[in-house]
Amino acid sequence: MFNEEKRFSQPIRWAMVGGGRGSEIGYAHRAAAQRDNLFQLTAGAFDLDPQRCQDFGTSLGVDPQRCYADYTQMFAAEAQREDGIQAVSIATPNCSHYAISRAALAAGLHVICEKPVTFSVTEAEDLKQCAQARNLVFGVMYGYSGFQMLHQAREMVRRGDIGAVRVVNMQFAHGFHNQAVEQHSPGARWRMNPEVSGPTYVLGDLGTHIFYAAQMITGLAVDRLCCHRQSFIETRAPLEDNAHVMLQFEGGAVGTLWASAVNAGSMHQQKIRIVGEKASLEWWDEQPNQLRYEVQGEPVRILERGMGYLHNDSTAVSCNRIGGGHAEGFFESWANLYHRFGTAMDAASRGEAQPDLWYPDIDSGIDGVRLLECCVESADNQSGWVKF
Amino acid sequence: MFNEEKRFSQPIRWAMVGGGRGSEIGYAHRAAAQRDNLFQLTAGAFDLDPQRCQDFGTSLGVDPQRCYADYTQMFAAEAQREDGIQAVSIATPNCSHYAISRAALAAGLHVICEKPVTFSVTEAEDLKQCAQARNLVFGVMYGYSGFQMLHQAREMVRRGDIGAVRVVNMQFAHGFHNQAVEQHSPGARWRMNPEVSGPTYVLGDLGTHIFYAAQMITGLAVDRLCCHRQSFIETRAPLEDNAHVMLQFEGGAVGTLWASAVNAGSMHQQKIRIVGEKASLEWWDEQPNQLRYEVQGEPVRILERGMGYLHNDSTAVSCNRIGGGHAEGFFESWANLYHRFGTAMDAASRGEAQPDLWYPDIDSGIDGVRLLECCVESADNQSGWVKF
Amino acid sequence: MFNEEKRFSQPIRWAMVGGGRGSEIGYAHRAAAQRDNLFQLTAGAFDLDPQRCQDFGTSLGVDPQRCYADYTQMFAAEAQREDGIQAVSIATPNCSHYAISRAALAAGLHVICEKPVTFSVTEAEDLKQCAQARNLVFGVMYGYSGFQMLHQAREMVRRGDIGAVRVVNMQFAHGFHNQAVEQHSPGARWRMNPEVSGPTYVLGDLGTHIFYAAQMITGLAVDRLCCHRQSFIETRAPLEDNAHVMLQFEGGAVGTLWASAVNAGSMHQQKIRIVGEKASLEWWDEQPNQLRYEVQGEPVRILERGMGYLHNDSTAVSCNRIGGGHAEGFFESWANLYHRFGTAMDAASRGEAQPDLWYPDIDSGIDGVRLLECCVESADNQSGWVKF
Amino acid sequence: MFNEEKRFSQPIRWAMVGGGRGSEIGYAHRAAAQRDNLFQLTAGAFDLDPQRCQDFGTSLGVDPQRCYADYTQMFAAEAQREDGIQAVSIATPNCSHYAISRAALAAGLHVICEKPVTFSVTEAEDLKQCAQARNLVFGVMYGYSGFQMLHQAREMVRRGDIGAVRVVNMQFAHGFHNQAVEQHSPGARWRMNPEVSGPTYVLGDLGTHIFYAAQMITGLAVDRLCCHRQSFIETRAPLEDNAHVMLQFEGGAVGTLWASAVNAGSMHQQKIRIVGEKASLEWWDEQPNQLRYEVQGEPVRILERGMGYLHNDSTAVSCNRIGGGHAEGFFESWANLYHRFGTAMDAASRGEAQPDLWYPDIDSGIDGVRLLECCVESADNQSGWVKF
Ligand SMILES: NC(=O)c1ccc[n+]([C@@H]2O[C@H](COP(=O)([O-])OP(=O)(O)OC[C@H]3O[C@@H](n4cnc5c(N)ncnc54)[C@H](O)[C@@H]3O)[C@@H](O)[C@H]2O)c1
Ligand SMILES: NC(=O)c1ccc[n+]([C@@H]2O[C@H](COP(=O)([O-])OP(=O)(O)OC[C@H]3O[C@@H](n4cnc5c(N)ncnc54)[C@H](O)[C@@H]3O)[C@@H](O)[C@H]2O)c1
Ligand SMILES: NC(=O)c1ccc[n+]([C@@H]2O[C@H](COP(=O)([O-])OP(=O)(O)OC[C@H]3O[C@@H](n4cnc5c(N)ncnc54)[C@H](O)[C@@H]3O)[C@@H](O)[C@H]2O)c1
Ligand SMILES: NC(=O)c1ccc[n+]([C@@H]2O[C@H](COP(=O)([O-])OP(=O)(O)OC[C@H]3O[C@@H](n4cnc5c(N)ncnc54)[C@H](O)[C@@H]3O)[C@@H](O)[C@H]2O)c1
Repeated sequence: MFNEEKRFSQPIRWAMVGGGRGSEIGYAHRAAAQRDNLFQLTAGAFDLDPQRCQDFGTSLGVDPQRCYADYTQMFAAEAQREDGIQAVSIATPNCSHYAISRAALAAGLHVICEKPVTFSVTEAEDLKQCAQARNLVFGVMYGYSGFQMLHQAREMVRRGDIGAVRVVNMQFAHGFHNQAVEQHSPGARWRMNPEVSGPTYVLGDLGTHIFYAAQMITGLAVDRLCCHRQSFIETRAPLEDNAHVMLQFEGGAVGTLWASAVNAGSMHQQKIRIVGEKASLEWWDEQPNQLRYEVQGEPVRILERGMGYLHNDSTAVSCNRIGGGHAEGFFESWANLYHRFGTAMDAASRGEAQPDLWYPDIDSGIDGVRLLECCVESADNQSGWVKF
Repeated sequence: MFNEEKRFSQPIRWAMVGGGRGSEIGYAHRAAAQRDNLFQLTAGAFDLDPQRCQDFGTSLGVDPQRCYADYTQMFAAEAQREDGIQAVSIATPNCSHYAISRAALAAGLHVICEKPVTFSVTEAEDLKQCAQARNLVFGVMYGYSGFQMLHQAREMVRRGDIGAVRVVNMQFAHGFHNQAVEQHSPGARWRMNPEVSGPTYVLGDLGTHIFYAAQMITGLAVDRLCCHRQSFIETRAPLEDNAHVMLQFEGGAVGTLWASAVNAGSMHQQKIRIVGEKASLEWWDEQPNQLRYEVQGEPVRILERGMGYLHNDSTAVSCNRIGGGHAEGFFESWANLYHRFGTAMDAASRGEAQPDLWYPDIDSGIDGVRLLECCVESADNQSGWVKF
Repeated sequence: MFNEEKRFSQPIRWAMVGGGRGSEIGYAHRAAAQRDNLFQLTAGAFDLDPQRCQDFGTSLGVDPQRCYADYTQMFAAEAQREDGIQAVSIATPNCSHYAISRAALAAGLHVICEKPVTFSVTEAEDLKQCAQARNLVFGVMYGYSGFQMLHQAREMVRRGDIGAVRVVNMQFAHGFHNQAVEQHSPGARWRMNPEVSGPTYVLGDLGTHIFYAAQMITGLAVDRLCCHRQSFIETRAPLEDNAHVMLQFEGGAVGTLWASAVNAGSMHQQKIRIVGEKASLEWWDEQPNQLRYEVQGEPVRILERGMGYLHNDSTAVSCNRIGGGHAEGFFESWANLYHRFGTAMDAASRGEAQPDLWYPDIDSGIDGVRLLECCVESADNQSGWVKF
Repeated sequence: MFNEEKRFSQPIRWAMVGGGRGSEIGYAHRAAAQRDNLFQLTAGAFDLDPQRCQDFGTSLGVDPQRCYADYTQMFAAEAQREDGIQAVSIATPNCSHYAISRAALAAGLHVICEKPVTFSVTEAEDLKQCAQARNLVFGVMYGYSGFQMLHQAREMVRRGDIGAVRVVNMQFAHGFHNQAVEQHSPGARWRMNPEVSGPTYVLGDLGTHIFYAAQMITGLAVDRLCCHRQSFIETRAPLEDNAHVMLQFEGGAVGTLWASAVNAGSMHQQKIRIVGEKASLEWWDEQPNQLRYEVQGEPVRILERGMGYLHNDSTAVSCNRIGGGHAEGFFESWANLYHRFGTAMDAASRGEAQPDLWYPDIDSGIDGVRLLECCVESADNQSGWVKF
């Protein structure tokens, strides 16, 4: 059971870059970080506009002097303080993730960075090196991966409950951008701009999430993939608003991935189905407390969060905040991740060995960026296979 | 949109009675109260055992001196302080709700009390008088009633989207107590004990929740009801572990209510269906982000939280914390209620008129207790009709 | 596996009374009876209007001379023939079921009669006596009871898979008559007319179906019941368009039944949930190939028609016509019943002992009528309990 | 409304090749053909084994003299008779479809042939020529395409209800062959044998069905496709038991197709989702009476068979056999197709112009075989794009 009892002698002094007033995802970070009293919001460079940053940070209870005009200033000033920040979350549009992350690591800060973590694999690998060199934690915000039924799925695969994996079908396909909404919505606009968004739109914005879920659950390494992408709203080219990917994993399993923002009428439809020799697992982020377990020749079973029949030693159980039947949701998934990030940071800060827990780290950040690079290369080459 | 920006010049200084370490519902209260920075946990009489109270409160960051051995002590000591508590939540077993609430009101505190709010209507009405006399807010923790799709349902009924209401079918029927688990589970045990639980088990523990949802959505007054209740585990008698109720509302509508703890294999099955002249609405707490809207002669529609087609001026929209498609859950429902409680308290404390918002107040607390009284009277009289 | 291979040396020579052109349910009878080549449509008094009967029967391939002006004539004429009819199905409005059935039995014919089988229990018991006296089969057309997953449910209850039954909740509640459609629809009009329909509308038209399913599955005898019924369209009084019933079974189980024609927006919502000590079963006629099996403490299981894990010796399996996964439907359910009726008639005609198969017989017809009588009596007496 | 009233002055004299006792699909053909009295089973070469053919045909009521040892004999003998057969259905394993169809056409018979219709496009086009030359009807048994909600979908696309089509995702993926069941099951065995099954297994056995549904609904021509196929049970090579296909349609739409027999735990999962500019449609063969209609920015709508809001002039409505809410199923879908085949044959036989109705004809048969050829070519060439 997770709850709010203090775990660390001191909560981690924590700041944000980006995530300012009106931003899409800033609140989710703050709600998650503060949920279990592991992090304390201490400073911030929340906004491109210094005045808005000041106003907003103050309204959140941050010392006005620690609401900074930009992240360079913040990292420098905080480094001077005895009670300076120890960790930072980066929730700016994609183009600045690399530079800010690098500066943060250089300033000795643990980092939690939004996805996709960089524009290129080279950059992402550079971040890995920086983090390792200084023994810093680097978490990537694949925010759905805190859902407990995905952890149960991972444990089931590990234990052989479904046999060797054969097929992994992934999708994250909403319909909110079926028209050129970017003409009116700034949050949509930057996502369609390659200079801000990077080399892809839906593959990076949506595909990386469910791709990480697949990796986390199956542990399978991708061998190669091919991709077909489209810009149904033509002005979005070269960025895609729809993409289909076929994957070949090492060891023989195969897969598909569908990412889309033009799937009219759909809310999220983020789903994963993992087909094993004996059984399949299926999960859907809109009903995240259930996991379908389908053993060939037996009735389909619907597993529920919070129940005694789940694998007890899996984190599916340790993360519970309320009994089964109650709907946990998106915010708990995020809080579960922040809980892990905090635990890892606390151990690192105290010079202890990393605890035995997994979370989306820089390696999964690199793999997410590699997915995008490979997809673009394939799409540009007649959907030919590209080595992962 | 709800988020964590500070709303009050000062968060409300808040304490809990009950809800100690290991309790079922204490964490839910604290997570909800602190979610939007409207309440600050300042003191507590969390536990029957003073030492455990001390340990636990401290671990939550409460000043050890303000972790009290019992509520009498707490109300007295806090009243002496300039920075004394302003509000208290009561999350003890049912038998003590009345005495603690009364003492809290006497001490000039706003109260948030668990359900059922008292053992008798007389007691509940007494609390109403006390609260009114001192202009204090009295909230009742019908915790599911913060779900936004219920607010949308309420607004739809008000606007006539379904026509005059004809039938209201309610149920909250889980299976976790299909065997005599009270032999091993203390949390189950007190619920089966009339001295602690009051005159009913499942009707009070479960039925009051969905009954409040019906009242809140339809605004219909019950005229009379009849009830049939059973103790399938015989040692539970006189308390019921299963009950069926038939209701007659004023104006012609009718209804049913099924409450059960022996509905084997079911998680919650808390559901409400409201049938109007033109259309029906249906909601299920295990998939709380959806609301079925079924207009006769048209395809069933599935409404989703967070969407632009919801009634804009309903609180279904103002409570959003994240875009549609993302699963909000139980904790957001609770936080939405605490948000309302806090807003009402803040206005009351500043001597302002109550804002135009509804929440489960002492009147709904009284009605919940009246439901139980009427059900017991009917069940004891051959399921005859009893005037509500 | 059922299929079309001939089972009897000779198909049963069979006729219909009612079910003429444009009638609601005549086609269902003919499609079911002829599906497995067990019955051959040989004669008919299909319609109140002799000319329409003639035209229609001829179009169905019946010898024009055997299309009769009325049933009296038909029974008399056919009795004279060596190749006269052996069985008759009665698909006229309710008011004529008794007289026609009685005449048919008197003429030595096996009978398949629509529900409700008569207006009173006395009449229904009289039919039983007539049938027994002449060793004639009397089937009642509870047409949904041929669905295989109900047979699986019955077998599961018999074997103790769910433990002793505690609660049986039944409903059949559509919305097609939420307005006074009887002003334009003749098929609706007679149903609201007590002289044609009998003492009830929805209880007889809908409630008897799901009530039979409960009896067939659980084998429980009703001890007493109480009923609350309404005419939301006032001109329908005294007949109800909505009714709620509470039941007490012998041995301690309880139940509810909801029948409605004003459940706006609903198609059928014919559902049954049977709660046992250990597990529950749930079935819904709109997705009839699935049966939910919910063992307390285990994941919900969804059983599918046609699968090897079903109880092999149950008729759930022997009735299969196509492999699992394919949707069987309403017409197969009816055909499965006619298959049983035919098998019973064939044995009776050859003077053989009745095969060991159950089907909705005159006893279940009597019980259906008794349900209606008891409900009316209770509803007329303040919903008091009435002995069944 | 469809029902059993005779439509033709004479039912079509009809025979089968294959579909003998114990075969998987023979009963479905006979149940469908005879459902509406349009076809009369008159002769047959049902089985490879002449004696079994004789026994079986007789049990079906076929004149023993017209139960033939093989199809050559049958076509010759029947051609001599004045009352000889007019049409034949071919339900043998794939390898013999071409030869038997050709012989049937040569004998002047209308043909209904199982899918895939031949091994090669060349053969299929040859059949087309033969049929055209003699003005004979050639129907292909894409048996799911008679489901009414697919017809509604087609009509909706035609009318522009969803806007221009962008994405078509198809799947038919069961789990029944997740192990090497062909070792024990003859019905599975031939499907894995390229000499009997042809160049593919699941693509031909399953993929052609849902591919036809897509073509029928959207009317879109495939421009090119690429395919990745696997034999998870290695002994099945070169035939695949799992395949993923990406498609590019003319005009810009794209699609995917997943066919599998190793999708452990799944019954059928035959699904199609059609994404248009404005809205999407989704259908699932296991719940065939519903069609999801998802307009972007509006609540999802669930359309039901039999309802007045369906497009009235679509065949979704004319095929109804029973009111909405009742589950129609697989057998009605087949009967709806046979109804169309019969209507076309009757017109052709009487020398009339073909009525304005569409059904899976030889062109759709050719396209199905072309799908297979292209998939094999692509899979053999590193999943490169292949012109359709
Ligand atoms: N994990 C998820 O589920 C999820 C969901 C949404 C967004 N995201 C990711 O989060 C990131 C932000 O997305 P968003 O939708 O919230 O964007 P947004 O445009 O809504 O908000 C971005 C915020 O960052 C601020 N900002 C921009 N550049 C800055 C800089 N250099 N310094 C300080 N502040 C700066 C802006 O002022 C704004 O407050 C993106 O990388 C996106 O991919 C992730
Ligand atoms: N709203 C909901 O959804 C919901 C859910 C669960 C419980 N409840 C209600 O909450 C109340 C508590 O239920 P629970 O399941 O958490 O009980 P519990 O037995 O799990 O916990 C009760 C807690 O109260 C403490 N306590 C008891 N008497 C006390 C006293 N006089 N002073 C101080 N502390 C005291 C106990 O030490 C314990 O920590 C009940 O009224 C119950 O009906 C409501
Ligand atoms: N089992 C089911 O699911 C189901 C469904 C619908 C109707 N029903 C029952 O079937 C019966 C008929 O209902 P319906 O909806 O088809 O009615 P309907 O009004 O549509 O058709 C009745 C038919 O009976 C004929 N008829 C009436 N009186 C006759 C007589 N004395 N002799 C010969 N023909 C006569 C009429 O001409 C008409 O063709 C009713 O008892 C009803 O309750 C059962
Ligand atoms: N449309 C569908 O949904 C569907 C479903 C199943 C099968 N099929 C197709 O139907 C065809 C038959 O498949 P099945 O599963 O029924 O096969 P099966 O092996 O179960 O039965 C084949 C039958 O054909 C007979 N037969 C074989 N060769 C013959 C010949 N030369 N002359 C006369 N009879 C012969 C066999 O004796 C047997 O009775 C295949 O093409 C298959 O793809 C279609």
